Amino acid sequence: MFIPRRIKHCRACGSPVDYQQPPEDNRDRAMCPVCGEIHYENPLNVVGTVPAWGDQVLLCLRNIEPRRGLWTLPAGFMELGESTAEGALRETEEEAGARVELQGLFTVLNVVRVGQVHLYYRARMLDTHLAPGPETIEARLFSEAQIPWDQLAFRTVRKTLEHYFADRRAGCFAVHAGDVG
Amino acid sequence: MFIPRRIKHCRACGSPVDYQQPPEDNRDRAMCPVCGEIHYENPLNVVGTVPAWGDQVLLCLRNIEPRRGLWTLPAGFMELGESTAEGALRETEEEAGARVELQGLFTVLNVVRVGQVHLYYRARMLDTHLAPGPETIEARLFSEAQIPWDQLAFRTVRKTLEHYFADRRAGCFAVHAGDVG
Repeated sequence: MFIPRRIKHCRACGSPVDYQQPPEDNRDRAMCPVCGEIHYENPLNVVGTVPAWGDQVLLCLRNIEPRRGLWTLPAGFMELGESTAEGALRETEEEAGARVELQGLFTVLNVVRVGQVHLYYRARMLDTHLAPGPETIEARLFSEAQIPWDQLAFRTVRKTLEHYFADRRAGCFAVHAGDVG
Repeated sequence: MFIPRRIKHCRACGSPVDYQQPPEDNRDRAMCPVCGEIHYENPLNVVGTVPAWGDQVLLCLRNIEPRRGLWTLPAGFMELGESTAEGALRETEEEAGARVELQGLFTVLNVVRVGQVHLYYRARMLDTHLAPGPETIEARLFSEAQIPWDQLAFRTVRKTLEHYFADRRAGCFAVHAGDVG
């Protein structure tokens, strides 16, 4: 995999960095030749929910790039100061304006190519009031038969919905961990 | 929660940054007043395994800070270019020199205070050959009765071991998601 070298300057002192292998490390890091700061770059978590109302699930039509105009589950980057569950709730509120109760971790999906891990929780909608935020054109409930499979924004959304409907048919929800290409 | 403001200079151009709220965002980010770069700081994943050999599990005596001289499950920061499972395998190899086969995701534990998510996989050791790396003083197998509960390095290790032995007694391993203080 291509590891991007995005850091040009030291965040501590502003000097240009070199990519070098620090002592007792086994890969190159952005190192500051002036102050010695070592900068690590690591994968990011994306957290979200599968909001359910009866036999319907809630999808959001994206109003931002990437994938503007395609459907997604409410989700976004996990922030400092919150847990995966708190982040999933926050994103559901921000993107759909939906009030939900979390029901458990559902998928943990690696997207190695872009350095992300996507974690989705099952969630029960408390009512059907929706108030989409600026990142969402429209939030709408879909039955399984209505899911716009060819207009989904991300493969982790597809995979999560596939697991969701398969588990629902089986009558038992598990936690699914895996990778998407 | 205290969100550290660790970024002093822009990674793109080296100019001093200001912490400000970007347009269409809802929290302060390190923004570069010269080139416009926005720097995000997000939680990090720590990935590891519960390596089992019969009724014993493998712990490593830490040779590095923090918590040098305390026992841990093999684990470390997830890197770009790998999945959570691949990172867990890599850390098990690096810290214990153990060859294992992964058996499934086991715990997903938030440590909000330090901005981390710890993900542990159950793993079956393929043999008892161990070759601890420089970060480990000693790697050793422990039965449940032998676990040094008062000398464990991290609360996520304690919680993961508690779930492990409870599930083993129950005869069924689940995935456990939650928070540790």
